[in-house]
Amino acid sequence: MRKVILASGSPRRKELLKQVGLDFEVCVSKANEITSRTKPDEVVKDLSYAKAKAVYDDGHDKDIVIGADTVVYMDEMILGKPSDEKQCKKMLKSLSGRSHKVYTGVTILWAEPGGGMHVLSFCADTTVKLYPMSDKEIDAYIATGEPMDKAGAYGIQGEFAKFIEGIEGDYNNVVGLPVARVYQELKKHGFAD
Amino acid sequence: MRKVILASGSPRRKELLKQVGLDFEVCVSKANEITSRTKPDEVVKDLSYAKAKAVYDDGHDKDIVIGADTVVYMDEMILGKPSDEKQCKKMLKSLSGRSHKVYTGVTILWAEPGGGMHVLSFCADTTVKLYPMSDKEIDAYIATGEPMDKAGAYGIQGEFAKFIEGIEGDYNNVVGLPVARVYQELKKHGFAD
Repeated sequence: MRKVILASGSPRRKELLKQVGLDFEVCVSKANEITSRTKPDEVVKDLSYAKAKAVYDDGHDKDIVIGADTVVYMDEMILGKPSDEKQCKKMLKSLSGRSHKVYTGVTILWAEPGGGMHVLSFCADTTVKLYPMSDKEIDAYIATGEPMDKAGAYGIQGEFAKFIEGIEGDYNNVVGLPVARVYQELKKHGFAD
Repeated sequence: MRKVILASGSPRRKELLKQVGLDFEVCVSKANEITSRTKPDEVVKDLSYAKAKAVYDDGHDKDIVIGADTVVYMDEMILGKPSDEKQCKKMLKSLSGRSHKVYTGVTILWAEPGGGMHVLSFCADTTVKLYPMSDKEIDAYIATGEPMDKAGAYGIQGEFAKFIEGIEGDYNNVVGLPVARVYQELKKHGFAD
């Protein structure tokens, strides 16, 4: 049985794979996160490939390597992780009381029995609708420290849950990994259950 | 400041209220969970009222009391908690590969300043779409022990996540409490932030 390698240092992605009972190891990718794409679904697929490929090439070409990348998208703009508190505030103010989309690209790589590398890439998108947030609520949320390492400056699974009116799509995709789809793909190719 | 009382012993509801940073106490309701209603939204509102009212009347009429009840609904049938493994299996087989709805009714009770009791009841519904599950997958899931105390025989937040293709609505409503709406209602009435 081949090993499954998660090419991501994100504790949330690790938690999700663990939650569904998969055996895996983590190997953080040293990939250069640069893409020439501009459409959100292409950007995240591109970056998920870069992350997975860097780990695959770094001694894991006998394993099944999973890379993922998540962005928030609104008003034709891609929101990644905020660089400082000022940017946090700007992002959260722009998301308040409206709908946006979260895109996670996933790439799964493994060696074909006959040689060559199999590339499986997909993108999941989820629409997220937020209640309006007051300045006081935004400031209090930033003070929790939660937003800083998260695309779009929020984590759906934390205190921010109180601002989520509803979603359409996969919830775990917003957390950072569409883990159901990952499991279903692994199963389809004989790598799970 | 009035105390918030959660009239439910569910560890998941407790976890959700904690997650959004609310101060509250738990007081498990001894209400008779009986209703003459048959429509799912009316059933859960009725039962959430019964749970909240029993606690309100039991020495908490100075507090803000929150009751909740959750059911799964498919094919004109209400699925509550399974009574045994056989029923678990039947429920999971019927849910497999299809969409169903989850209804949570919430009632919030508090005393009006001028006397009398304020009753706020609402129902949130979320559509959940599942991937097909094999018999082997269903048996393995039942063996985890997760389904037994849960409406519809599954918990969206556990290993079952690998079978959730997507949802439409509030995720936490499926966990057992639409905590965002609860927070927004408390805020609107001056009981939060």
